[in-house]
Amino acid sequence: MTPASTPPIPLGPSAPVVGVIGAGQLARMMQPAAIALGLRLRVLSADPSDCANQVIPDVVSGHPSDLEAVLGFARGCEVVTFEHEHVPAKVLDALVATGIPVRPGPGALLYAQDKAEMRAKLSSLGLPCPAWARVATPADAAEFGNETGWPIVLKATRGGYDGRGVWVVEDADSAARVVEEAAARGVALLAEAAVPFVRELAAQVARSPHGQAVAYPVVETVQAEGICREVYAPAPLVDEEHALEAQRIALTIAKELEVTGMLAVELFQTADGRLWINELAMRPHNSGHWTIDGAVTSQFENHLRAVLDLPLGSPAPHAPLAVMANVIGLDLPDLYPAYLHCLARDPGLKIHNYGKSVKPGRKIGHVTVLGRDFEDSAERARHAAAYLRGEIDE
Amino acid sequence: MTPASTPPIPLGPSAPVVGVIGAGQLARMMQPAAIALGLRLRVLSADPSDCANQVIPDVVSGHPSDLEAVLGFARGCEVVTFEHEHVPAKVLDALVATGIPVRPGPGALLYAQDKAEMRAKLSSLGLPCPAWARVATPADAAEFGNETGWPIVLKATRGGYDGRGVWVVEDADSAARVVEEAAARGVALLAEAAVPFVRELAAQVARSPHGQAVAYPVVETVQAEGICREVYAPAPLVDEEHALEAQRIALTIAKELEVTGMLAVELFQTADGRLWINELAMRPHNSGHWTIDGAVTSQFENHLRAVLDLPLGSPAPHAPLAVMANVIGLDLPDLYPAYLHCLARDPGLKIHNYGKSVKPGRKIGHVTVLGRDFEDSAERARHAAAYLRGEIDE
Repeated sequence: MTPASTPPIPLGPSAPVVGVIGAGQLARMMQPAAIALGLRLRVLSADPSDCANQVIPDVVSGHPSDLEAVLGFARGCEVVTFEHEHVPAKVLDALVATGIPVRPGPGALLYAQDKAEMRAKLSSLGLPCPAWARVATPADAAEFGNETGWPIVLKATRGGYDGRGVWVVEDADSAARVVEEAAARGVALLAEAAVPFVRELAAQVARSPHGQAVAYPVVETVQAEGICREVYAPAPLVDEEHALEAQRIALTIAKELEVTGMLAVELFQTADGRLWINELAMRPHNSGHWTIDGAVTSQFENHLRAVLDLPLGSPAPHAPLAVMANVIGLDLPDLYPAYLHCLARDPGLKIHNYGKSVKPGRKIGHVTVLGRDFEDSAERARHAAAYLRGEIDE
Repeated sequence: MTPASTPPIPLGPSAPVVGVIGAGQLARMMQPAAIALGLRLRVLSADPSDCANQVIPDVVSGHPSDLEAVLGFARGCEVVTFEHEHVPAKVLDALVATGIPVRPGPGALLYAQDKAEMRAKLSSLGLPCPAWARVATPADAAEFGNETGWPIVLKATRGGYDGRGVWVVEDADSAARVVEEAAARGVALLAEAAVPFVRELAAQVARSPHGQAVAYPVVETVQAEGICREVYAPAPLVDEEHALEAQRIALTIAKELEVTGMLAVELFQTADGRLWINELAMRPHNSGHWTIDGAVTSQFENHLRAVLDLPLGSPAPHAPLAVMANVIGLDLPDLYPAYLHCLARDPGLKIHNYGKSVKPGRKIGHVTVLGRDFEDSAERARHAAAYLRGEIDE
């Protein structure tokens, strides 16, 4: 890792430095796009083992809640952006006060950080949200469940990801236990009606400060235990009307919340076709990893272009469909020995190995397959992801 | 730049380090492929301003002719490869003696380093070369020219690139001047018949140590003043028979010369359709830059896969055609300010900025456009390259 004091490597006179808060796989996957455009990335890394540190020379050590570290990191950056939303408001405000552009800005980021603020804002815009309420006591939760029907979903308003901080509760007693435990830990909660969805979708758009926006094809996402497993682009079972509606929702949110950079809107679709907003992410998102290999402009390139206020690139796909499967840590300590088999079996397979140490349940990579036939492409992606994690051995 | 003594960043237990001799744009463009596959690149950089140093954390300073530097650099590498051929034989031999695989090996690389050795070998294989001879004296050159007809082409057997070390001479007097000057500098020459070509082509293949090979679509290349300006993939005016013949020639050379990694065979095509071998390069090559955006597996990824003896990836193109235009340094000191116009004009444009300081005539970047219509795609790529270098201003 390069210490912050290393003299800068010579660059063209105006090639900008983009500061990225966070140094995990999302920052790592920004680097190929930055290399092509001749941008320099600087990452703020809280842990020397962060996987972006392997591939980006300009690493500043520091935690995103450490104001001095963040301000030192930001010095000399053309713009500061994020690979995660876990940055305290006081740090964001101090960063904005320096005059360095922060994109997305704190005013937008709030709605990705706080699910209750997000619900209040989207409801006020008339966008389709499930019934929801802030809950502070077991009585609040019981009242909400009795009104909307059980089960209900309780969520920490802040800090959850990959299914953490989300509890589906069947009755008032179960809800009370979650509410009391959260209260004891000082965690604010909201309750949402459980949406009886038939599938989950994601709509991604990029938006720049001058207001240009592009929408990617709407995808279907498949989760297990709260973690995304597979993404199908475009969503194979969604008709054009509802795909356009999902894009319209995402474009509206990007505009009304003044998002800059990539926005992902996770949606539920119910049997009647209706769409319900689940979560927002204001950064590159797992549902768009297929764009690295499958679109003219990847979500990572468009995120960088958007936060630099450069014109956005075409989101057009290269192939009729793409299937992305996450590689979730299991038994194998490392992905590399499995390459021989996977790459020999499928010359079209695109492997992405994040260089992370393997822990069960951890996202350690993904694979993408482009194709024409859904079942064939899905089988190829699933097989490779299962083989790479050690779930199957042939 | 990270000194060689920096403690290694933690990696998965078996992710290999690939050593690359040279740290220019070809090494730089290997990094996105390495990032995806979770490989670590280490570059040997002769100059701190080498453009790969901006994007690869593991940089070892040293000149490729410095044996101690090269051996220190190679220690811990799974394999050593190259972005250029300018490595002395004694360094290559010492490297091989360490037991670390060197790919391509010195036995193959000789034919990319020495044009006379290349002509002798390819002629012995019955492959189509123009008439040629080693020339040591003005009389040798005059005799060759009188036999084959003037003009003839004189070439330094070693060390030339981008048109340097090549002289087209019209008569015996001009030849004598080149021969005498070369002799005074100790430069060995060969003479070749000037091929009256109608177009230049390039055939690229990847070949791995276990003998697998894949062939990319044959491209047309357009040069000016010895420097590649544009590449059309696939070559629009070449019929299937001759395209297959070009691929067969490249596959034969890769096999017979035991090339590992990428091989580019530059070819002339004459009006009768016949193909004539011009030059060889055993590394990623300018004629394959379109594959970064335009093929399922880029030449950079297949080079890394080949030298690691991993199965090779599909060379299939994403679109009916791709046009690549080099950005050659001219007036503008930096490409970045031109992005606003170029990216707004063409959302499908793929800009590659090598981060090099601009010198007139220097390759500082390239652009790629994928499309269906040749004239439209060529106009878009040409316009962007001309605007980025400052040749046009609208």
